[in-house]
Amino acid sequence: MENLYNELDAIYEEIVEIRRYLHENPELSFKEVKTATYIAEYHRNLGHEVRTNVGGNGVLAYLKGSKTGPTVALRADFDALPIQEKTDVPFKSVNDGVMHACGHDGHTAALLGLAKVLNGMKSEIAGTIVFLHQHAEELPPGGAVSMIEDGCLDDVDVIFGTHLQAQMPLGEVGYRSGPLQAAPDRFDIKILGEGGHGAYPHDTKDSILIGGQLINNLQQIVSRRVDPLDAAVVSVCNFEAKNPYNVIADTAEMIGTVRTFKEETRDFIEKEIENVVDATCKLSDADYEYTYTRGYPTLVNHKHETEFVAELAKDVPGVQAVNETPPIMGGEDFAYYLQHVKGTFFFTGAENPEWEKVYPHHHPKFDIDERVLLIAAKVLGKATLQYLHVHADKIPNEAES
Amino acid sequence: MENLYNELDAIYEEIVEIRRYLHENPELSFKEVKTATYIAEYHRNLGHEVRTNVGGNGVLAYLKGSKTGPTVALRADFDALPIQEKTDVPFKSVNDGVMHACGHDGHTAALLGLAKVLNGMKSEIAGTIVFLHQHAEELPPGGAVSMIEDGCLDDVDVIFGTHLQAQMPLGEVGYRSGPLQAAPDRFDIKILGEGGHGAYPHDTKDSILIGGQLINNLQQIVSRRVDPLDAAVVSVCNFEAKNPYNVIADTAEMIGTVRTFKEETRDFIEKEIENVVDATCKLSDADYEYTYTRGYPTLVNHKHETEFVAELAKDVPGVQAVNETPPIMGGEDFAYYLQHVKGTFFFTGAENPEWEKVYPHHHPKFDIDERVLLIAAKVLGKATLQYLHVHADKIPNEAES
Amino acid sequence: MENLYNELDAIYEEIVEIRRYLHENPELSFKEVKTATYIAEYHRNLGHEVRTNVGGNGVLAYLKGSKTGPTVALRADFDALPIQEKTDVPFKSVNDGVMHACGHDGHTAALLGLAKVLNGMKSEIAGTIVFLHQHAEELPPGGAVSMIEDGCLDDVDVIFGTHLQAQMPLGEVGYRSGPLQAAPDRFDIKILGEGGHGAYPHDTKDSILIGGQLINNLQQIVSRRVDPLDAAVVSVCNFEAKNPYNVIADTAEMIGTVRTFKEETRDFIEKEIENVVDATCKLSDADYEYTYTRGYPTLVNHKHETEFVAELAKDVPGVQAVNETPPIMGGEDFAYYLQHVKGTFFFTGAENPEWEKVYPHHHPKFDIDERVLLIAAKVLGKATLQYLHVHADKIPNEAES
Amino acid sequence: MENLYNELDAIYEEIVEIRRYLHENPELSFKEVKTATYIAEYHRNLGHEVRTNVGGNGVLAYLKGSKTGPTVALRADFDALPIQEKTDVPFKSVNDGVMHACGHDGHTAALLGLAKVLNGMKSEIAGTIVFLHQHAEELPPGGAVSMIEDGCLDDVDVIFGTHLQAQMPLGEVGYRSGPLQAAPDRFDIKILGEGGHGAYPHDTKDSILIGGQLINNLQQIVSRRVDPLDAAVVSVCNFEAKNPYNVIADTAEMIGTVRTFKEETRDFIEKEIENVVDATCKLSDADYEYTYTRGYPTLVNHKHETEFVAELAKDVPGVQAVNETPPIMGGEDFAYYLQHVKGTFFFTGAENPEWEKVYPHHHPKFDIDERVLLIAAKVLGKATLQYLHVHADKIPNEAES
Repeated sequence: MENLYNELDAIYEEIVEIRRYLHENPELSFKEVKTATYIAEYHRNLGHEVRTNVGGNGVLAYLKGSKTGPTVALRADFDALPIQEKTDVPFKSVNDGVMHACGHDGHTAALLGLAKVLNGMKSEIAGTIVFLHQHAEELPPGGAVSMIEDGCLDDVDVIFGTHLQAQMPLGEVGYRSGPLQAAPDRFDIKILGEGGHGAYPHDTKDSILIGGQLINNLQQIVSRRVDPLDAAVVSVCNFEAKNPYNVIADTAEMIGTVRTFKEETRDFIEKEIENVVDATCKLSDADYEYTYTRGYPTLVNHKHETEFVAELAKDVPGVQAVNETPPIMGGEDFAYYLQHVKGTFFFTGAENPEWEKVYPHHHPKFDIDERVLLIAAKVLGKATLQYLHVHADKIPNEAES
Repeated sequence: MENLYNELDAIYEEIVEIRRYLHENPELSFKEVKTATYIAEYHRNLGHEVRTNVGGNGVLAYLKGSKTGPTVALRADFDALPIQEKTDVPFKSVNDGVMHACGHDGHTAALLGLAKVLNGMKSEIAGTIVFLHQHAEELPPGGAVSMIEDGCLDDVDVIFGTHLQAQMPLGEVGYRSGPLQAAPDRFDIKILGEGGHGAYPHDTKDSILIGGQLINNLQQIVSRRVDPLDAAVVSVCNFEAKNPYNVIADTAEMIGTVRTFKEETRDFIEKEIENVVDATCKLSDADYEYTYTRGYPTLVNHKHETEFVAELAKDVPGVQAVNETPPIMGGEDFAYYLQHVKGTFFFTGAENPEWEKVYPHHHPKFDIDERVLLIAAKVLGKATLQYLHVHADKIPNEAES
Repeated sequence: MENLYNELDAIYEEIVEIRRYLHENPELSFKEVKTATYIAEYHRNLGHEVRTNVGGNGVLAYLKGSKTGPTVALRADFDALPIQEKTDVPFKSVNDGVMHACGHDGHTAALLGLAKVLNGMKSEIAGTIVFLHQHAEELPPGGAVSMIEDGCLDDVDVIFGTHLQAQMPLGEVGYRSGPLQAAPDRFDIKILGEGGHGAYPHDTKDSILIGGQLINNLQQIVSRRVDPLDAAVVSVCNFEAKNPYNVIADTAEMIGTVRTFKEETRDFIEKEIENVVDATCKLSDADYEYTYTRGYPTLVNHKHETEFVAELAKDVPGVQAVNETPPIMGGEDFAYYLQHVKGTFFFTGAENPEWEKVYPHHHPKFDIDERVLLIAAKVLGKATLQYLHVHADKIPNEAES
Repeated sequence: MENLYNELDAIYEEIVEIRRYLHENPELSFKEVKTATYIAEYHRNLGHEVRTNVGGNGVLAYLKGSKTGPTVALRADFDALPIQEKTDVPFKSVNDGVMHACGHDGHTAALLGLAKVLNGMKSEIAGTIVFLHQHAEELPPGGAVSMIEDGCLDDVDVIFGTHLQAQMPLGEVGYRSGPLQAAPDRFDIKILGEGGHGAYPHDTKDSILIGGQLINNLQQIVSRRVDPLDAAVVSVCNFEAKNPYNVIADTAEMIGTVRTFKEETRDFIEKEIENVVDATCKLSDADYEYTYTRGYPTLVNHKHETEFVAELAKDVPGVQAVNETPPIMGGEDFAYYLQHVKGTFFFTGAENPEWEKVYPHHHPKFDIDERVLLIAAKVLGKATLQYLHVHADKIPNEAES
């Protein structure tokens, strides 16, 4: 691996440059046309076979080793967020209201740098490496589903990916076998009451009152009906019932999110919210509309592959600690890949220990310590090479038969 | 009184014409410039002394009798509502989005017609009649307060007024001594929580949750803390907390109305809402802003004057029933006049018994049976003449000393 | 009437003595055997025809005038309460845990005194007077129903009754036409959830949680669904769910009271409570038992008879004020009589203006100013004589045909 | 280990006999006098040094090996529950209302059998074995604390213990590093409102209403304020407010339990409940009393010792599966030992796979497959011998310095 590490160290400046270019030119989910072109161009320059417009703006690049062997996919997402950047960096976003505030610029830069280095090691490689550049991670339905449908996982034996974490110290790698990120769903409730004059409540079915009760009643799903050992969240985030001060609300609209790790809990909550809405509306003889929209599934890491990466990460240069990380309630559409092939998704710490204040992801002042790019590239690179080495004797494409 | 009745009957067509003209040309509260001009012109043509721009767009016209005596004020309001008319009448509103949907056109037409007739009976009149044409009854702070400040009640001994009621049968007169219409107040609550990601409620102070609890907690003011024999309403009519589906609300705004009949209950509820808001916010360690805006006071009819009108109304032609009416929770700024001088406000039924469907006041299809105009004018006219007759021996301006 | 007043004045000491004897020897509702005997004896001594055990412990005594005429019933109740007296009066209850804490001793003493005086005026009386001594007013189903079934109102044309009021000043008489006292009903709710270990709420249907929601949800019946102008109360007074600290409640029992004035509101609330219970239990998929038990009906005074008494009371010696009284939420089974015959029930003030502290009815220190006995007797006596006088020409028994 | 296993197999009948004797003669927590005597006698017969009345009814027996070495403590609890046994076993409890319904009889029998076998292997043993027979596990404050204060852990290097699990299949061993069982606390809330007549709620501070709101408000602690990834339970299990149907509650008493794994969450909830109580009472201007009583701490297994037992258990005869078990919300005072010395507590499956119905712990029909006794003894025995072997070179009493 020394070769891998040295070659990555040698192009650190280039990786940083790529990241800063991407940061300065962010594009919103499903609109990442220029970024996709940039990525495709970079791979073409390396001589990789490239597929563009994969399931949308997705880009696939293939590095074929000198010998046959298994196929490893490395994924980096590249979309940005509808946030107005408020940092003072010289490579601040030039696109008004759009910002790489989640580190996807870093994911992509690390992967492109790694691609260049691995390309140079082609002679040592027995197998194929797929650089899976995914668009639209931030916005459901996400880019993963359509890329999979468009064949991005064809012949892939294993997939690795990482997320830079602004609130995890630089040098730390976090892994977790099993559920790592929750399934983020959405619900929409419309209460259909009966409006009227504020002075005559008895002639109405007060949708705001019903909504108030509903908010209270929904609390019990998490507090009483889900196993306390099974993490779940039900949040009402939007409530709208606009009326003059003396007109009782005819309707009220509520929108919110549900987070779960287990599919059965997800099913239960989807149904239970409707039960609560139904009974609460019955209290006032009102009607309702209810829709529940599933977001990404729970991201479930495969045990063997997770332990594999956790173990090999320990002596990667720059890595000071490899810890089991608790799961998080946020979602990630990497989850879809893991439903199809083995693999793991891990966290790479990007917090500069000297910063006085660390801004969370999606914050207008979000930033990363760029040294994380090298660490991420090295861990992904080592995982790739070691996986190919270990599975060298497997017949390609049937590795997981 | 036969003379009065006959003269009014004789100009019925003119009264209807006036009403239709006004109906066709409605103006919003505080913007009734043309209507005021029309009214002033009508009185000037009768030879009445006229004051315009009284406390805004208010108009006062004075009919001095042939002999001295007490002063009687008759009030009619003349503003319209921000409603798009949906009737099929030939004299439908020509002003888009503005409609006489509460009958104030009728109040004014009846009073103008009555003015004409009483003018012709000047020789029989001992005293002064003030035709009090009030603007802006529909919109707090209303026109009454400023007209009073501008002297509309100077030297007035008694005031009479009526409201046409679309949902009371034609021929019925409704009276009530004491509280007739509730005090309509407004409250504004802004919950100042702390927003955050929908997946991490424990890092937030969820303003929608607080709002939901607040709506529930406010119910107890009426259900448990106000004397059950004392009518009161607390309605939350507006609730706004607009957010993406996965962002917990930072703030939530609630607006509503309070209705009471007793000043002490009004004071209590104003204070109690804040107590409930304060304690409910404390539950989540959140802050709030609270304002309570008093609307019109409770309309309290004077006993003697109410019985006086109730009695005399009984044999007015067209009147078939004079009933004690229950109080209503809606407000009326005639209330202010009754805080300064004796008087009464009564209801005159305007529902055509043959209509299949009766639309309530403030409805886009609101209408009246125009025969009510004659009945209202006759009752007001008789009250005026009889009052002047009964109090003929009083020294003017000191009648109520 | 001077004769009536003088004769009553003359036996004031005796009336007081009777009251004190009754006060010292109170008996619980439905167990008033000795009191009934005492009353019957008193009337027999006057030579009245007496019926005992009327519908239970009820006593009827008849005074026939020298001439025929209408029949007037005067009602006094005579049961006491399960309260341990804590006053210092020399005629304190000798029956442990039983006390005349509502003034029924006074009602009976006044009526017996009046009977004696009227008996002496027999020659002037044209008609019949029924002294209706009712047992068990305090405890539903009360004594009135069974006495009526047993014929106590047969041939009766009108009924009068009064209640001494410890919190109304001596000398005041309170009347009200229409609804005077609310219908006091009872409800019993048993929530049938599913118990379990306090650490595993998701395996249970928590009856205490359901009960908590139910209490909140019930508030809306009064706050939102009953016309604000229509007084109503729904109180949950008992809540029992006894369990170890770590065992979730299998069942919870709630008992409470409803107060209404209108039969339609009563019907509505009886049904609406069940709607609320049903929907609230549905929220947790629990079952319930619900029973609603009607107490006395609303006491509705007849207009004509009420005005009749209010008018005549004005110049009764000792009466300083005759006021319209607001209705009260407490119940009274005099209500049943008024469903069968015309009549009125009024309040007679018994508060000594010099007392520092006035104890409410049903309080262990409840007391009355005994001068009220004379006032009550005089008003009832005058009402009787005047009624007989006014209706002297009516053919008995068909007076109200 | 073959020797250990064979010797245990040889006395299986005796172990079963002991268990049945104990089952037939159960004693309540803190009253286990005869059981303690029985245990002490058994050890004395083996020639063990015995301490009785250790921190109450606790018994300590010491087996000193032929050579010096570390000290291993093995814990078994021996108290029973206040439950009326409803099984049909021939060794059914003879003590009315008392039952070994949690398997402590089995814990003790397995440990006594193991003591006998280990005693016979003395010559092979280098170190000391402490048989820690603990009283009163079922009833806070439990027996562990006082036994520790009385020296039961003196010189102990490591402690092992197990709980038979009726709902885990025979042959399964469950382990978990870190938090295994929650801290079970208790709270008592008394609401001090102001009672009154059910018809006059506005004159009261309704304690049942306040209690109802409180139950609702408490839900948010778990649903919104504790990290969704941090398991917690707040259950209100007892609610008492006993009153006549028409008397509003003066006070209401609520008792419940809290379950947490983290000390900071425990501290937070203790404080947060009071915040919620305080704010909820403020809503009605009522007072309250609040006490929070901590039960056992969270049972936190030591990582190294847990993995040690999990590993060695794999090839113990009878063990078919060794699984990581999820934590459970129930408490266990073994937790105290682990605050002082290293060690682990694990579960041993006792469910007969052929049973049609399995009754949970604390159920009147609770039972175990007695073959679990042998498995538990073998795992504990192997853990002891292997630990002594591995740490043979350690200087006794300073092993963990």
